[in-house]
Amino acid sequence: MNISSKTPVTLLGLGDMGTALARAWLAAEHPLTVWNRTPEKTGPLREEGARTAATPAEAVASATGPVVLCLLDDASVGEVLDGTDLNGKDVVNLTTGTPAQARLRARWAEERGARFLDGGIMAVPPMIGRPGTGGYVFYSGDRELFERHRGVLEAPAGAEFVGEDPGHAALHDIALLSAMTGMFAGITHAFALVRPEKNLDRTRFAALLAEWLGAMAGTAHDMAAQLVGGDYTEGVTSNLAMMTAANDAFLATAEEQSVDPRLLVPYMELMSRRVAQGHGDEGLAGTVALLGGE
Amino acid sequence: MNISSKTPVTLLGLGDMGTALARAWLAAEHPLTVWNRTPEKTGPLREEGARTAATPAEAVASATGPVVLCLLDDASVGEVLDGTDLNGKDVVNLTTGTPAQARLRARWAEERGARFLDGGIMAVPPMIGRPGTGGYVFYSGDRELFERHRGVLEAPAGAEFVGEDPGHAALHDIALLSAMTGMFAGITHAFALVRPEKNLDRTRFAALLAEWLGAMAGTAHDMAAQLVGGDYTEGVTSNLAMMTAANDAFLATAEEQSVDPRLLVPYMELMSRRVAQGHGDEGLAGTVALLGGE
Ligand SMILES: NC(=O)c1ccc[n+]([C@@H]2O[C@H](COP(=O)([O-])OP(=O)(O)OC[C@H]3O[C@@H](n4cnc5c(N)ncnc54)[C@H](OP(=O)(O)O)[C@@H]3O)[C@@H](O)[C@H]2O)c1
Ligand SMILES: NC(=O)c1ccc[n+]([C@@H]2O[C@H](COP(=O)([O-])OP(=O)(O)OC[C@H]3O[C@@H](n4cnc5c(N)ncnc54)[C@H](OP(=O)(O)O)[C@@H]3O)[C@@H](O)[C@H]2O)c1
Repeated sequence: MNISSKTPVTLLGLGDMGTALARAWLAAEHPLTVWNRTPEKTGPLREEGARTAATPAEAVASATGPVVLCLLDDASVGEVLDGTDLNGKDVVNLTTGTPAQARLRARWAEERGARFLDGGIMAVPPMIGRPGTGGYVFYSGDRELFERHRGVLEAPAGAEFVGEDPGHAALHDIALLSAMTGMFAGITHAFALVRPEKNLDRTRFAALLAEWLGAMAGTAHDMAAQLVGGDYTEGVTSNLAMMTAANDAFLATAEEQSVDPRLLVPYMELMSRRVAQGHGDEGLAGTVALLGGE
Repeated sequence: MNISSKTPVTLLGLGDMGTALARAWLAAEHPLTVWNRTPEKTGPLREEGARTAATPAEAVASATGPVVLCLLDDASVGEVLDGTDLNGKDVVNLTTGTPAQARLRARWAEERGARFLDGGIMAVPPMIGRPGTGGYVFYSGDRELFERHRGVLEAPAGAEFVGEDPGHAALHDIALLSAMTGMFAGITHAFALVRPEKNLDRTRFAALLAEWLGAMAGTAHDMAAQLVGGDYTEGVTSNLAMMTAANDAFLATAEEQSVDPRLLVPYMELMSRRVAQGHGDEGLAGTVALLGGE
């Protein structure tokens, strides 16, 4: 039996991510109890020092530290916790979901007497338990729970508390991943443009592209300053009018290189719409509201 | 009169960018001759030490160093150089255009006895002449011309030679700006998602977003390695199947936050198309070819 002064952890869900989390807690010498629907997955962890529980109810009942969930989706969280006694428990849900799901799940857990913290994991399993690989987890909800279990939460990856609204971890998670999807679309378009060129050094091109995007990612700071201050011309070096003036060259180049411009066109249109509203002197902040109402 | 051992520069075009270039060359003590269609713009530079020419023909005829063009577009380059004697001259075209325009302009100049270098400026005027602000210029075409005039070319901003195909500077320029447009679309979507939240710290959100995108920009290296090596599963930590599995949560969150997902949907569809072709284990490289033929 493991004797440790560290907070015990109870973990429900041993998929790729759950297993990586389990190993990080074992490595950090937290007493660990695991449960998984398919019990075979507990075998290797048991050899590495984990206790196993036969049912979620048993796992939760014996928990004296945080009960962590890392399951497929919010529906599986509901199924797994159904029939467990959450009264007085600290629940940390690392299952990906939407902000609204996290808010409902928080209320649901609190109604059953639990404290609730939601998390959004910004890492892939190989980054877990490896400081310096850049992974971290957004947390939101019960701030006291977060502070009390900070040591547990920081063992697998960095921990960023982003507010008491339990939906805000999921919102940060999905907002960052959504922005990344846009960046990936741009990178894909760029590689498509150079695809017909036999004499173009793609490795050097990638290095220049990555460096450029890294430098331009700071535009997010300018947009925040504009949105917070309400002056959308603040700090603008390249305004919407100048940017949209280049769109014809972008489209002509795409055509020359036989590239379908569908990944770029929607944002070009959004910028042009804002310019047509008489805001060519602004930065990008004014395009945000064009995506929807409140 | 200026006595300098530095290479003399002849500059046609004194818009915002041309004027910034002129000042950088004056600051670096290159003897400078300028011409601009609207002659009033030469006044301040003349006071700062520039010589002025009355016509492009006169400017080009007196040039002993590079003749630099920084005009609105390729058509204005044609108009300005029409009637000048380019025989034996070194022409450096910093006017934004498409790769095909640069190739045609190179041939046109070479037919008139000139050497030709095309440039694509990755900077805004305030970055010109200020090392450390990150601006630089892509060059392609006559490599000897580039090497001979490297000192001139590096005075306003860093100089990156990207190949002897005169279209490759413009292609690099537009490819990087296109990728940036995709990233800006992603950032805009992300800010739209958090827009309804009153209690969300946008300044911290922007810092987290910029850091995340900066870290993920390195995905361009992975894509290049996959495209060069031909194995699209190389180095993949998060594959297309895993990425597309998250799309429903992205769309559901957009709907919860009343955000029109039009900026993300085209790339989600492209990824899903590749997964449907049986390539869920790949990274992003396989989506490149889906944007078009050769
Ligand atoms: N992997 C990543 O790169 C990554 C990154 C960030 C966030 N995440 C998030 O982390 C969570 C887990 O991801 P993962 O990669 O570990 O997924 P996974 O490998 O597919 O594992 C899914 C886990 O959920 C369990 N499960 C599914 N449906 C269930 C149900 N109805 N009842 C009980 N258990 C059920 C599975 O149990 P069985 O073993 O019995 O099937 C398994 O333990 C997800 O929300 C995911 O979005 C993952
Ligand atoms: N500004 C930037 O941030 C930036 C960044 C990267 C690249 N660039 C590129 O640099 C080039 C110049 O940009 P800019 O910002 O300096 O533009 P600008 O301020 O609009 O100046 C345009 C220049 O072109 C001249 N011109 C236009 N049509 C002409 C014609 N038919 N005949 C003769 N001259 C003509 C103008 O002369 P007048 O003074 O007589 O009108 C002026 O000198 C463009 O290709 C632009 O894409 C600019």
